[in-house]
Amino acid sequence: MTGKGSRHPLRNIKMVVEYDGTNYFGWQSQAKGKTVQTVLEEAIEKILGHRAPVLASGRTDSGVHALAQVANVRGHFPLDDAALLRALNSMIPYDISLKSVETVPTEFNAQKSAKWKTYRYVIYNAPERSALNARTSWHIIFRLDMKKMREAAYHLVGKHDFASFMGSNSSVKQTVRNIISIEVKRRKELVTVETTSAGFLKQMVRNIAGTLVEVGRGRIKPEEMKTILAAKDRKKAGPTAPAQGLFLVEVGY
Amino acid sequence: MTGKGSRHPLRNIKMVVEYDGTNYFGWQSQAKGKTVQTVLEEAIEKILGHRAPVLASGRTDSGVHALAQVANVRGHFPLDDAALLRALNSMIPYDISLKSVETVPTEFNAQKSAKWKTYRYVIYNAPERSALNARTSWHIIFRLDMKKMREAAYHLVGKHDFASFMGSNSSVKQTVRNIISIEVKRRKELVTVETTSAGFLKQMVRNIAGTLVEVGRGRIKPEEMKTILAAKDRKKAGPTAPAQGLFLVEVGY
Repeated sequence: MTGKGSRHPLRNIKMVVEYDGTNYFGWQSQAKGKTVQTVLEEAIEKILGHRAPVLASGRTDSGVHALAQVANVRGHFPLDDAALLRALNSMIPYDISLKSVETVPTEFNAQKSAKWKTYRYVIYNAPERSALNARTSWHIIFRLDMKKMREAAYHLVGKHDFASFMGSNSSVKQTVRNIISIEVKRRKELVTVETTSAGFLKQMVRNIAGTLVEVGRGRIKPEEMKTILAAKDRKKAGPTAPAQGLFLVEVGY
Repeated sequence: MTGKGSRHPLRNIKMVVEYDGTNYFGWQSQAKGKTVQTVLEEAIEKILGHRAPVLASGRTDSGVHALAQVANVRGHFPLDDAALLRALNSMIPYDISLKSVETVPTEFNAQKSAKWKTYRYVIYNAPERSALNARTSWHIIFRLDMKKMREAAYHLVGKHDFASFMGSNSSVKQTVRNIISIEVKRRKELVTVETTSAGFLKQMVRNIAGTLVEVGRGRIKPEEMKTILAAKDRKKAGPTAPAQGLFLVEVGY
């Protein structure tokens, strides 16, 4: 729509992005296939006339959804915030949407300025699978015991070494994190595990969800969470829950 | 798995079917493309060894979803109900699921035995569209007035000639129907119109939803519903709401 003009002042744009991750290889651009970042960068390129990096609060894995991922991009945009929001939403596919676009101070950095994040893991807990929940939940046949799951979750809240819950292919060395809260709820067939922390290790929420499901179906005792944490060994915890049940819910600044 | 054997008694199987209609040309088999009926008949053919018709309570249009469509099929099934349920769910794609399979008396006919149906129309009412609700709702930007929509819906409840709300390509002559209830609700961004009747005309729920949206945004007055009904003219009512917001919720027997 315009070139790299200096007619328009340089702005730092904060975007709140919702996406259905089913058809994407996660947030971050990569060679394997289409990502949410790539889609946004391509749309913004059409407006700016050149490529500009769109940086998020953190990457989400392939297939993971977001209710409100936060990202920022700097550029000489020829549109005000409201017009930019409309333009971008009209250019991107239906499974990605911008909830808001806002010009923020230049020092705002979606990743570094983030203070905490909330993730929700959704389990569809019923004898038969659900067509309408298939893209957005993990189907567990065995009736989950909420009381046991809550008791197990309680042992994870606070500052702990979460090495046992870190994706085994991560190279991060400092594995202590502080979980502010974990809530386990049931509403009919949907069981949710919602957790907030200043930071999570790779696949930590999915590994916690996978372990809590083992507790809920009686294969791990709630108090064993203490032993699992102490072991600092990924093999001691439960399986990694599949990506399609995970939602990035909110990022706090 | 077995031929047209007489080893197994003839049973009439009632199935409750959930589907995400996004990828289907509706319920009923047709040349244009994949339908829910075809998927189920092909799976059942693999079990019976021959094709058998799967008849539903009624067809749903292309793109329409179902929480609990009801269908029945007769055959010499070599599996009991529980095993048949598991077998079929393992053979059909993730966007169709069977909630239950039950052997019922031979006279049960999913269409003719149906006493009433409940449909829900879902509107995502917010300034910006929602990626995660895109497949299952109609996005309306203008803030909808619940009070006006409820007042308008009130005029439709009861026995009326709904010719003004019938799809213009329908050849049905008897256009009197009896709406038992219409409920208009809001929960955050989601506005739902849920209606129950012994029978609906073609596209009647989508035409009612489209008209109620016109009322909710102030382009039709609630009391005009009386004039619209009296006109018996499709052109007097509002537009047909798009298929992706419609769900067949329940069929009563």
